[in-house]
Amino acid sequence: MAAAERMVVIGGDATGMSAAAQARRLKSPDELEIVAFERGGFSSYSACGIPYWVAGDVAERDKLIARSPEEHRSRGIDLRMRTEALELDVDGQRVRVREQEGTERWVGYDQLVLATGAVPVRPPLPGIDAEGVYGVQTLDDGQQLLDALEQRVEFGGTAGEGAARRRAVVVGAGYIGVEMAEAFVRRGYAVTVLEKAEQPMSTLDPDMGKLVHEAMCSMDIETVLGAAVTEVLTDERGRARAVATEDAEYPADVVVLGLGVKPATALAREAGLPLGESGGLLTDLAMRVRDRENIWAGGDCVEVLNLVSDRAQHVPLGTHANKHGQIIGANIGGSYATFPGVVGTAVSKVCDLEIARTGLLEAQAAAVGLRFASVVIESTTRAGYYPGTRPIHVKMIAERSSGRLLGVQIVGRENAGKRVDIAAVALHAGMTVEQMTSLDLGYAPPFSPVWDPVLIAARKAAAAVREG
Amino acid sequence: MAAAERMVVIGGDATGMSAAAQARRLKSPDELEIVAFERGGFSSYSACGIPYWVAGDVAERDKLIARSPEEHRSRGIDLRMRTEALELDVDGQRVRVREQEGTERWVGYDQLVLATGAVPVRPPLPGIDAEGVYGVQTLDDGQQLLDALEQRVEFGGTAGEGAARRRAVVVGAGYIGVEMAEAFVRRGYAVTVLEKAEQPMSTLDPDMGKLVHEAMCSMDIETVLGAAVTEVLTDERGRARAVATEDAEYPADVVVLGLGVKPATALAREAGLPLGESGGLLTDLAMRVRDRENIWAGGDCVEVLNLVSDRAQHVPLGTHANKHGQIIGANIGGSYATFPGVVGTAVSKVCDLEIARTGLLEAQAAAVGLRFASVVIESTTRAGYYPGTRPIHVKMIAERSSGRLLGVQIVGRENAGKRVDIAAVALHAGMTVEQMTSLDLGYAPPFSPVWDPVLIAARKAAAAVREG
Repeated sequence: MAAAERMVVIGGDATGMSAAAQARRLKSPDELEIVAFERGGFSSYSACGIPYWVAGDVAERDKLIARSPEEHRSRGIDLRMRTEALELDVDGQRVRVREQEGTERWVGYDQLVLATGAVPVRPPLPGIDAEGVYGVQTLDDGQQLLDALEQRVEFGGTAGEGAARRRAVVVGAGYIGVEMAEAFVRRGYAVTVLEKAEQPMSTLDPDMGKLVHEAMCSMDIETVLGAAVTEVLTDERGRARAVATEDAEYPADVVVLGLGVKPATALAREAGLPLGESGGLLTDLAMRVRDRENIWAGGDCVEVLNLVSDRAQHVPLGTHANKHGQIIGANIGGSYATFPGVVGTAVSKVCDLEIARTGLLEAQAAAVGLRFASVVIESTTRAGYYPGTRPIHVKMIAERSSGRLLGVQIVGRENAGKRVDIAAVALHAGMTVEQMTSLDLGYAPPFSPVWDPVLIAARKAAAAVREG
Repeated sequence: MAAAERMVVIGGDATGMSAAAQARRLKSPDELEIVAFERGGFSSYSACGIPYWVAGDVAERDKLIARSPEEHRSRGIDLRMRTEALELDVDGQRVRVREQEGTERWVGYDQLVLATGAVPVRPPLPGIDAEGVYGVQTLDDGQQLLDALEQRVEFGGTAGEGAARRRAVVVGAGYIGVEMAEAFVRRGYAVTVLEKAEQPMSTLDPDMGKLVHEAMCSMDIETVLGAAVTEVLTDERGRARAVATEDAEYPADVVVLGLGVKPATALAREAGLPLGESGGLLTDLAMRVRDRENIWAGGDCVEVLNLVSDRAQHVPLGTHANKHGQIIGANIGGSYATFPGVVGTAVSKVCDLEIARTGLLEAQAAAVGLRFASVVIESTTRAGYYPGTRPIHVKMIAERSSGRLLGVQIVGRENAGKRVDIAAVALHAGMTVEQMTSLDLGYAPPFSPVWDPVLIAARKAAAAVREG
């Protein structure tokens, strides 16, 4: 007997499979058939973990896989791997797919979930598609990179005593770029990071980005700013041998692209679904595509509301993708759930440097017409006298007229980064920096100075607001 | 020329000297004379750091001193050490003090700050005042204990090869007790902790206390529950040699009392100032003693408002004491500041076990007539595949009718404890657990699973509330 309804999911990673699993919890196979299509060879994996796998910190690929296709199938989800969605017929409520062996067919749906993710930005430069140039967006990408690295160690003959140190060039100094830089440092490579902007981590204000730059240099990561890549130079076999900018050439045994991602929404665009400025799908709070009754979207292929700026933006992070999946699955399953929006939180690290941000940067605050005060403080992660205490810089931005918290950026060492959560919750609650000065945060010498660095920043920000 | 006004501070630690320093920043010596009396030999030190100093993690006593008497004096604060306040004459606006050399005199004030702190609970048991029994409330206490430990190592002849392992008995398994247990473990002692209650850490619910108990046992800290101490047994020289309970005797080379503290308010009580149930002074939000125009109080000698239960309680923590001092100093200095209250946050550790709480326990919620749902989840501190990921248990309590967060308790390993701050801010903001499920918390594999443990707990708590 056919099920009453069919749910079709395009994309078998965080959003898609969370939605499928959550809907399955709420509806039986008699009520709801669930079919999911995944273009690649892996389901439900942590793309965020790829840099640590490449670094050798995660021993094997399968550790990054939260749930295998078999596990999904055993729970009543018909997951088809290596199956690509080619066309979406909204009026006909059907999707054209090409299966692994090449067969194409139309599959009808009652509820459709678009979880097509994002694709790496890959500028159309000479040599960018050469052998030896890698992205790190999917597990397939990561596997290719690791295979290449291991082959080179095995056959390249340069891993022994006296051999030249292998060289990695990372293009882009955003989250992925700095994480991949760390990965190659840990593998013993000489690492060069080329960044077009005048600072690494454009998700930070320039003054905080400068702290990251200084720290990267002291880690022996050559970080070249204002370096726009013009070409990937290849050897006679067509392999990447160097990366060229306008000013110089950087020899490379391996080239990694860390230029960020953009929403993978070609299918949606061709079907006439509503897209935002970034190219991400636009949804309502229930994660339903705007004005489409039975099409849902979430994760890296949508825009989300930034609750601080009140603008939609593209925030491709696994944590949102998982939440979106849960919400879509709950709604399709007959429950009701919403995703109110993000406040722009992100945390990362490069070696022992922790980098975090939430809310708006100065430029973002200015762009939405806010007048603000900003302060930077330096403190320590533990009591000054406690072993293992490390430096932490906290920048805090507050609206001038109201004192409302607008954003926080943190650059520091061990135990610095996750303090951003304090500010993230305060942003959700719409707190003022004055209110933040009396937050009852956990204190004991191994965990914090008696004034937590976030409190110190709040006091200074509150004073700056008062002084007008 | 005499100053226009005189501010007198009783107690030269966190609250008193913060108040003095803040008032001095706002008013010149011509406007405000500031005199402070400290009974002990140290000013502005971290009592919270004493266990780590005893453990040997903090190399020297002076590291615990934020500002010496000389530094305070150089900033225009007339700080008199070893000077005890004996009597307070509220009508006459004066304090009788005994100076170090024994001279007694009356000192008039225009503004008075009571920062008399707390005294350790010391039950009137036989032998409790014997040599070899130590409190750890003041730096003087810590110095006495360390002097004794070092003397024993030097002269006791038991530190060499083949010597019996030295034994420490800690009475009380609250914050101070477990921190002192760790200190003696680190010094190589065999450690026994005797606790009257049926769980360690009465600041946690029994189920979470049980996790602490199990962990302490696996750390080779003998932790005896339901063990009411009846006597400290002494040797022929009057030195403590064992601690007796109703059931057993525990031999001890050193005995440490960790039974908590009570407000040191004898002076205030005799002067007829308003005290709460715990014996702590009652103040308004500006930290002014209730109905007294020019008497202020803060730190370990006052009660504060718990914003979750809406009841006053005694919460002796350095982080509040410092905030109170700032607020009192600002108000005396002609500015305006308030302390809205606490949410009951505390964090501690014993060896690598981190213990944190905020808000109300189940029993506290029941005591104020709240109906609640509570859940416990187990997760990890980092992504499951990331090196150094450790277990974390999060308990979350929410009001049944409204879903409002009431409290969170955390027991886990490295990087578990400070997550309590997320819940602390949510409590300040009056969030529901449903609202918490969509918090935009920092995620990257080295920092958190893709669902932060606090989010997992919030989801489970929200489901429990919905299911009624």
